[in-house]
Amino acid sequence: MKTLIILSHPDVAGSTTQQFLMAATQTLENVTLHHLEKHYPTGKIDRVYEQALLAEHDRIIFQFPLYWYSSPSLLKEWQDVVLDEKKITDWQGKEFGIVVIAGVAKKEYQAGGREIFTMDELMRPYQAIANKFKWQYLPIFGIYQFAYMTETCKQKLLIRYQQYLMLGNSQTLAERTAWFQNQLISISLSKEASLHDKIDLIKEQLQTNQEELEMLRFTLDELE
Amino acid sequence: MKTLIILSHPDVAGSTTQQFLMAATQTLENVTLHHLEKHYPTGKIDRVYEQALLAEHDRIIFQFPLYWYSSPSLLKEWQDVVLDEKKITDWQGKEFGIVVIAGVAKKEYQAGGREIFTMDELMRPYQAIANKFKWQYLPIFGIYQFAYMTETCKQKLLIRYQQYLMLGNSQTLAERTAWFQNQLISISLSKEASLHDKIDLIKEQLQTNQEELEMLRFTLDELE
Repeated sequence: MKTLIILSHPDVAGSTTQQFLMAATQTLENVTLHHLEKHYPTGKIDRVYEQALLAEHDRIIFQFPLYWYSSPSLLKEWQDVVLDEKKITDWQGKEFGIVVIAGVAKKEYQAGGREIFTMDELMRPYQAIANKFKWQYLPIFGIYQFAYMTETCKQKLLIRYQQYLMLGNSQTLAERTAWFQNQLISISLSKEASLHDKIDLIKEQLQTNQEELEMLRFTLDELE
Repeated sequence: MKTLIILSHPDVAGSTTQQFLMAATQTLENVTLHHLEKHYPTGKIDRVYEQALLAEHDRIIFQFPLYWYSSPSLLKEWQDVVLDEKKITDWQGKEFGIVVIAGVAKKEYQAGGREIFTMDELMRPYQAIANKFKWQYLPIFGIYQFAYMTETCKQKLLIRYQQYLMLGNSQTLAERTAWFQNQLISISLSKEASLHDKIDLIKEQLQTNQEELEMLRFTLDELE
């Protein structure tokens, strides 16, 4: 599976979140990071080039900071120029995901919260695009208040982000474990992660596995 | 009350709907029509100018054709450049409406329809902006399949559109009747509307008044 990240951010250099996410994709195979503002400094989108890029990939990810409850304007321009209803057949069978970075806490995105709507609700225009092209809409990958996260939280986020880019939408426990083992090998080879972080990550993964096993046992009990 | 229409459309000359709506605003007092693509052919928005324009008006209307379930990109750029949370106090007490033109039938914008979401749902990002600035969010003014409308339908649409721009959100019957009488005078002076159209409009308005009076009578009966 080939993943295309269409990144829209007018100031990637000044964003620690984007720097972190971009570093996380560098080592990944079959993941293309396409930064619109860098590729098109004048703002003029090349329709033919973009349509070819889209056709080549199986999973399309829009990645952006939340600007007025949507993407920065260049990603909207990309949509207006590149997306074409006549291509529904050519582009069928794709998956479509959103990685959205918000400066406000997640709890504010709900009825009664300061932002009154959930992120799912605010992203309806993208879900409608997925519906139009019959693409599988992936659960939104929201990153809230990255600046306040602990190092361990950031490392966990990195794993989840890489899984979002690379793994099947409804992956099995076995798939996730195999993927994680592969990732552990690469982490061991890198000097970025301290031993402490690695232990935390392994513990976390083991705990998730444990919970999943307990759930399976419960289901089996119910069936008996 | 002063109304500002912020119109975003890359090809107004080629749009019969926009030509129709623009003609409808020409005779209106206290309505400013501001066409972004015309004002900014290079796409570079003047923040200071736009913020001053916004501050001067009481009712802000975003008017645009639906492009991928949102506005064309220049209106998004306008939002990114002009809107500023720090101005909440300066900009308080405004009303905020959306005039959205769709080529697809209204019945498709619902669960089970081809577009799966209502226009209210698709416009959540704008509603969230109104919420952020504590502006009163007006019911969306949707125009669906304008090209297929009869002349009478178009004339009725014109009246409703002018009322959307100029009248209070929850205007009384007396207010609407007074406004309509004034409008009839201007219509009589113009050569555009045929006598037949005028009679239709008057009949329509009388019928609305009749229904409202019957409702009031019913309410009075209930109270007795």
